[in-house]
Amino acid sequence: MQTQDIITSTQNPKIKALLQLQQKSSLRRKEQLFLVEGRRELMHCLSRGYVMDTVFICPEILKAEAEYDTLLQALPKCHTIQVSSSVYDRIAYRGGTEGVVATIRMKEHGLDTLPKMPEGKAPLYVVLESVEKPGNLGAILRSADAAGVDAVIVCDPLTDLYNPNLIRSSLGGIFSVPTIACTSQECIAYFKAQGIRILTAQLQDSSLYYDTDMTLPTAIVMGTEATGLTNQWREAADAHIRIPMLGILDSLNVSVSAAILMYEAVRQRNED
Amino acid sequence: MQTQDIITSTQNPKIKALLQLQQKSSLRRKEQLFLVEGRRELMHCLSRGYVMDTVFICPEILKAEAEYDTLLQALPKCHTIQVSSSVYDRIAYRGGTEGVVATIRMKEHGLDTLPKMPEGKAPLYVVLESVEKPGNLGAILRSADAAGVDAVIVCDPLTDLYNPNLIRSSLGGIFSVPTIACTSQECIAYFKAQGIRILTAQLQDSSLYYDTDMTLPTAIVMGTEATGLTNQWREAADAHIRIPMLGILDSLNVSVSAAILMYEAVRQRNED
Repeated sequence: MQTQDIITSTQNPKIKALLQLQQKSSLRRKEQLFLVEGRRELMHCLSRGYVMDTVFICPEILKAEAEYDTLLQALPKCHTIQVSSSVYDRIAYRGGTEGVVATIRMKEHGLDTLPKMPEGKAPLYVVLESVEKPGNLGAILRSADAAGVDAVIVCDPLTDLYNPNLIRSSLGGIFSVPTIACTSQECIAYFKAQGIRILTAQLQDSSLYYDTDMTLPTAIVMGTEATGLTNQWREAADAHIRIPMLGILDSLNVSVSAAILMYEAVRQRNED
Repeated sequence: MQTQDIITSTQNPKIKALLQLQQKSSLRRKEQLFLVEGRRELMHCLSRGYVMDTVFICPEILKAEAEYDTLLQALPKCHTIQVSSSVYDRIAYRGGTEGVVATIRMKEHGLDTLPKMPEGKAPLYVVLESVEKPGNLGAILRSADAAGVDAVIVCDPLTDLYNPNLIRSSLGGIFSVPTIACTSQECIAYFKAQGIRILTAQLQDSSLYYDTDMTLPTAIVMGTEATGLTNQWREAADAHIRIPMLGILDSLNVSVSAAILMYEAVRQRNED
């Protein structure tokens, strides 16, 4: 592993380039790089086969926690840049508590990267059409990891899968749950070809979600909080499902709805 | 209704006092006033018997949306202050899209304000011990409204029930769901006296939540994401329940967990 002198200025070209990468999704796309911050998230990321490009570490923070050597040994061979704690505070998205930020090479997320299911296993997918807020998508990935969902498919995405807010709120779920980006048309065609039942979350013409069988190969499809699902999904659906709303408000947060529906599938699939 | 000239300066003493109230929970407590922003939230608040003290309206924004007269007619008699759109942008917590902010008189939230249940109705309560983040509590109140929960009880609260972030993220749930603040000791004593089953969410020594009966009078009790529940709750519990974690992460967001558990009670109670 190559190491260098400690960078102490935020005007250093490498630090400026890192900050640009943090802020601009167009640059991330061009360079095919994104950022991961925090030891735990980085370990989750590397354990899922992502390749590290450069790691920025702050020896001051890491040494204070007696984890410097452990981390250095655990990291694969790559370019290492040491930074002072004042530089680290500037590059850390979450406010400088963990001492490590890395740039990681993006992966492909096309429908053809969807993992094949073992024989006899009924897949459970969560599909999000045009989800706008990276924080909501991250929260859904965190719950999808917990519920053992086989993939989260983002159709016609309005957000970049490597948005720092998304990565942070997923707590590493973006690495552990296969995440696919494709068009709604491609996704519907795939489900129809594979015999996967499409359950669309919508209030109109719908059954209660817990009265709907989720033990078969299932895709739970959700739209945006503001406008719901487009007609192509409503028409492609095998069933329309709704979460009962028993109070004065007319909707749940999309990540809360997603978790309720995923865990209903977990419940049904665990019953004898 | 009294109206006045339009305030155009953020240095106006009334505007300065409002900003102080927004920022300081100690001042809110002293004055027994809190802020509500947005037409819908304000209507929810007033419909639940809260009393308005002063309303700050921005005619420019409201007139643009042709709702000025409607709103003025719907509001109870109280002191009305008109502000310019630049002043409104400064006082609006969410960024000035709705044209109305009001100060509202606080209510009592002691255990003695818990609504009596109709004969034969098994209450469903959600208890949060020492919840730290106002945004999480607000999100739980939003879901609690949707799930028809009879009350949310905050024990040994670390957050002020009228924190602007909480009010905003509850989308009005803080007004529609009876919200109680008390000590854990008082709460446990109340549940034991009333024969309400205490289900504590915890990973150790627990059953799967969907294998636990929630049709009886039930309180779902949750701790903080960081430290979980204190021993007094674990020991007072009639059952310990857990949400299965099937991925690499070791916890769900507390508001997501709360929603999954509340909706399991909805499911069980709706079954014939």
